[in-house]
Amino acid sequence: MARWKKEDSKKIAESTFFTLKEDDVVLPNGNKMTYTILDIPDFAGVLPVLDDNFVLIRNYRYPIDKMVLEIPAGLVEEGEIPEKAAARELEEETGYKLKNSEKLIEYHPIASLNTQKAFLFLGEVEKGAEINRDSAEDMCVVLIPISEVYKMLEKKEILHPHTMIALFYSKNILSERI
Amino acid sequence: MARWKKEDSKKIAESTFFTLKEDDVVLPNGNKMTYTILDIPDFAGVLPVLDDNFVLIRNYRYPIDKMVLEIPAGLVEEGEIPEKAAARELEEETGYKLKNSEKLIEYHPIASLNTQKAFLFLGEVEKGAEINRDSAEDMCVVLIPISEVYKMLEKKEILHPHTMIALFYSKNILSERI
Repeated sequence: MARWKKEDSKKIAESTFFTLKEDDVVLPNGNKMTYTILDIPDFAGVLPVLDDNFVLIRNYRYPIDKMVLEIPAGLVEEGEIPEKAAARELEEETGYKLKNSEKLIEYHPIASLNTQKAFLFLGEVEKGAEINRDSAEDMCVVLIPISEVYKMLEKKEILHPHTMIALFYSKNILSERI
Repeated sequence: MARWKKEDSKKIAESTFFTLKEDDVVLPNGNKMTYTILDIPDFAGVLPVLDDNFVLIRNYRYPIDKMVLEIPAGLVEEGEIPEKAAARELEEETGYKLKNSEKLIEYHPIASLNTQKAFLFLGEVEKGAEINRDSAEDMCVVLIPISEVYKMLEKKEILHPHTMIALFYSKNILSERI
């Protein structure tokens, strides 16, 4: 049984990827409140290694009007396993194919708001896929030496949280290439 | 001038902390799309150090029905500076007061969705404040040795992204206490 009891749930709005809901809940102390939920599908991303470089993207983020340096990542489709989603997003966004991968970590990026999970992988890549971005993706691929990216991380120049986390958890694994 | 041109913006829904909007935008390639925005205020958090322990909270997250181990943190109020917000949230959630603090990093946690900023600090704390949680906060305070928390981080047992980031960026600063 859940710790907070849901008495009612109303769908407030819906768009392609999001559902906004309001749940009426009762807390263990008897207090009642309305809790806002924004359902978003899970996402999967991979930190791609090509020789001594990372294959990253500069991704336009409309809300902040900035190009953000990020790992290739995207929403997991229904019925898709996260590792396949990460490999698919890598191909579509960068034109590189995943040769192998290992899972770094999974977690709830916004547990205050929804049940979304993030799945992060590390993998070696090779050329050979075709870029196939959707019309709302405004990005470019950049190859940056692994050691330089870790210097950027140290200098707090990587500002995408999931990219920071993928880098932190890959550092030991890649120590020979830094 | 913004890279994507906003032609219209409609408010879809609103609750205490959130505003859901749909913006009609034109991309540099001429494509038009509707972009969903969920405005949320900035948040600030502090990784609190008391001798050789971290002062953390186990925070109930209703969407996932779990107690999550996190740094004390909360939304920045209008006109409030982030460091004050972090100190206030620490007092209200834990009953500890901030003696000193240094900024670890600031970033946009969900740049795909909004302009929200996260501000993370590291600071030493002392007893002397009064716990004053709001009725929707269901949490408890835990003191855990610094070295043990870093072992948990290594074992991927810390699952709150902003807590992971605060820990990663504090590790060098705290190296003598680990």
